[in-house]
Amino acid sequence: MKILIKNATLISMSKKDLEPIQKNRDILIENNKITKIQKNSKETAEKVIDATDKIVMPGLINTHSHIPMSLFRETVDGLITQDWLTKKIWPMESKLTEEDIYFASMLSYLEMITSGTTTANDFYFMQEPIIKSALKAKIRLQVTTTLMDANGEGENRLRELEENIEKYQGKYDTITFNVGIHSLYTNSREYLQKGIEIAKKYKLPIQMHFCENAQEVEDIKRLYQVKSPVDVIETYFKEIHLLLAHGVKLTEKEIGRLAKLNVFMAHCPVSNLKLGCGIAPISKMQKENVCVSLGTDGQGSGSNLDMFETMKIAALLQKGFLEDPLQLPAYEVLKMATINGAKALGLENQIGSIEEGKLADLIILNLNHTPMTNPHNNILAEIVYNVKAVNVETTIVNGEILMENKKLLIDVNPQDIYKKCEEIIHQIQYKGGKSNE
Amino acid sequence: MKILIKNATLISMSKKDLEPIQKNRDILIENNKITKIQKNSKETAEKVIDATDKIVMPGLINTHSHIPMSLFRETVDGLITQDWLTKKIWPMESKLTEEDIYFASMLSYLEMITSGTTTANDFYFMQEPIIKSALKAKIRLQVTTTLMDANGEGENRLRELEENIEKYQGKYDTITFNVGIHSLYTNSREYLQKGIEIAKKYKLPIQMHFCENAQEVEDIKRLYQVKSPVDVIETYFKEIHLLLAHGVKLTEKEIGRLAKLNVFMAHCPVSNLKLGCGIAPISKMQKENVCVSLGTDGQGSGSNLDMFETMKIAALLQKGFLEDPLQLPAYEVLKMATINGAKALGLENQIGSIEEGKLADLIILNLNHTPMTNPHNNILAEIVYNVKAVNVETTIVNGEILMENKKLLIDVNPQDIYKKCEEIIHQIQYKGGKSNE
Repeated sequence: MKILIKNATLISMSKKDLEPIQKNRDILIENNKITKIQKNSKETAEKVIDATDKIVMPGLINTHSHIPMSLFRETVDGLITQDWLTKKIWPMESKLTEEDIYFASMLSYLEMITSGTTTANDFYFMQEPIIKSALKAKIRLQVTTTLMDANGEGENRLRELEENIEKYQGKYDTITFNVGIHSLYTNSREYLQKGIEIAKKYKLPIQMHFCENAQEVEDIKRLYQVKSPVDVIETYFKEIHLLLAHGVKLTEKEIGRLAKLNVFMAHCPVSNLKLGCGIAPISKMQKENVCVSLGTDGQGSGSNLDMFETMKIAALLQKGFLEDPLQLPAYEVLKMATINGAKALGLENQIGSIEEGKLADLIILNLNHTPMTNPHNNILAEIVYNVKAVNVETTIVNGEILMENKKLLIDVNPQDIYKKCEEIIHQIQYKGGKSNE
Repeated sequence: MKILIKNATLISMSKKDLEPIQKNRDILIENNKITKIQKNSKETAEKVIDATDKIVMPGLINTHSHIPMSLFRETVDGLITQDWLTKKIWPMESKLTEEDIYFASMLSYLEMITSGTTTANDFYFMQEPIIKSALKAKIRLQVTTTLMDANGEGENRLRELEENIEKYQGKYDTITFNVGIHSLYTNSREYLQKGIEIAKKYKLPIQMHFCENAQEVEDIKRLYQVKSPVDVIETYFKEIHLLLAHGVKLTEKEIGRLAKLNVFMAHCPVSNLKLGCGIAPISKMQKENVCVSLGTDGQGSGSNLDMFETMKIAALLQKGFLEDPLQLPAYEVLKMATINGAKALGLENQIGSIEEGKLADLIILNLNHTPMTNPHNNILAEIVYNVKAVNVETTIVNGEILMENKKLLIDVNPQDIYKKCEEIIHQIQYKGGKSNE
């Protein structure tokens, strides 16, 4: 389909544009690509969207999430993390069926589409229903199954991952893979190697949780007999596209070493705060030129998948923590949520900015109808600090309009999904799950 | 008018209710008061609101704001605080007319009403247009004019405050006063005394900025020749209802001394972060039984007046900062935004909880129509972490419905206000203000 977006205020996030904000731009989308950006376009299209007085920007890219965990939203309040995991999450997860995963994922995709996220990076298990649900929701997804040998599932997970790569890789524009190694502390050296082999075989990025809290750092040091978790990264992950999630407990020196390894970082400020992990030193990472992107983590710890809120909290935290209001100006934070996210997933040639030739993943914001986004003194800061899901009017992924003027155009009824997810969690919590019936 | 809210899920925030959440409650409002809370009410009313599957809770109370600063939203990005104040804010403020203040305040009241805040505490100047605008918007307002002698306006401000107290005090249910002393570092001992005299004469609370950042603490020590800012509080503010804003830079010992003086604290986490002040030790304050409430600060530093967002960030910050997920469970945070706010303003017998005999300030939330508030695992945590303005359906202040099912019922057209405020800020920034034309 041919879509023409007329008269937009464009925040392209492209390095080629000298000014971050460009007025009166017409954007032509043909099939799944952006083919022309110009003023006063004479093009015609089947679908014309008037974006006068509206913002067009790249769809947001969430580089760390556990998509089906929408089911477990707000189960952590008043619990320490270990009790939450062992007494609540793991017993509930053990009862999840493929159907449960499908609907829980759909709830998350609804969250994402309505709040301006166009690309999700998942890190869970039972990846097939997560993929099927994403295809139905038409969102862009990078997916893995979580590789972990501590739970005795190691070999099965390796097999599952390879099977799904073989089955889906290259078949759909919107589905890509990475290799998700749960963490260093839940895996042996031998098992790490097996994950790395798959990444090399299929030329995929690796994602891994890393230095989320103080306990994890101690565990890694003990298990691997090293002075720093970075020692393990240096030994095993050289020359590998490695996306680390969290990085809360890192010293300045360790950050310098990671920078030399060209790792990518997924910063998850909400989850890091809520679980009491701490505040990740991302300003320092940026100074060392580590590419920092943003993630929400799963809704169990991160509450929601709202990348606008994540941008705001990321921007505020470094300023407050370092007692320096000049940390993370708005444009830097926007980069973290868009082009840096694309880099983190190895997709920077396809998404993350609005440029001719790139895939058409973009959102249209209306800042004119909510009191919190008026008056317009600084549009970039307004987007980081005051835009909410309610301001996201239109979401386009891979050239398809998934939501237009707040109306969902995908073949999914949100109320059905909410009802289904409520039933699933009730079933799991109070009746032992369907799989045990 | 008689209003009957039927079949609500009630979060009353009343100490009398043993359970925080009560199902199937009918709430009768007569004139401006809540007169009956019961199950299966047989009452009739001119207006019946069906709250089936919805939450009814007290309206939120914002205990620290500078209401007309909506005009200056997002002017601080990329600036240090001193430059922002001296080069941007103060020159712009010097050009504000009474009409500007009226419309800027209206924009803020629209923000509040649509995001669930029913009581505002203002701390600005030119209080009469702020009051008139509040009367038009029908929101509850506690107001002062900022007393400060450093700017040479000291005597005028004292006169203005007394004049307005005489003119408005006791005339309107929704308007009360306090005495806003800007801070210790901008006032002489003699001038402090004058403010305190007015508070005693009219039996009013005092509000004051206090220990917002490290520089302020140093200034106070130097100016007053004391070892701690708390020394000054002990000398001048004994036996006074004192609401302090910020309290970022306080030691554990100082908090203990403030607790003995029964001060109230307005915690403004967003502004404290954004200006690079730091993270206020409010968990410690709560342990010492200091009554902590929540404020947004002005939108210049705080971006918006969203008390749901403020609750979330307050709840997250202490957990992350102290690396302890058990800090500030959801119900504690809800108290801060409701009943503690009422206490801070000396209004705990009138507002802050839903009880028979109290004034009818309440909001109705719909958690069923947004993906982020489904499924419902823990309603209290859902409200703190996932509710946004979009979930606030109905806002009632003093027994009047200001918004019902998202439709504003006050005689104000938001689009007119947005347009007017855009004109005002344009006038001030680029043309030197109307007063100079």
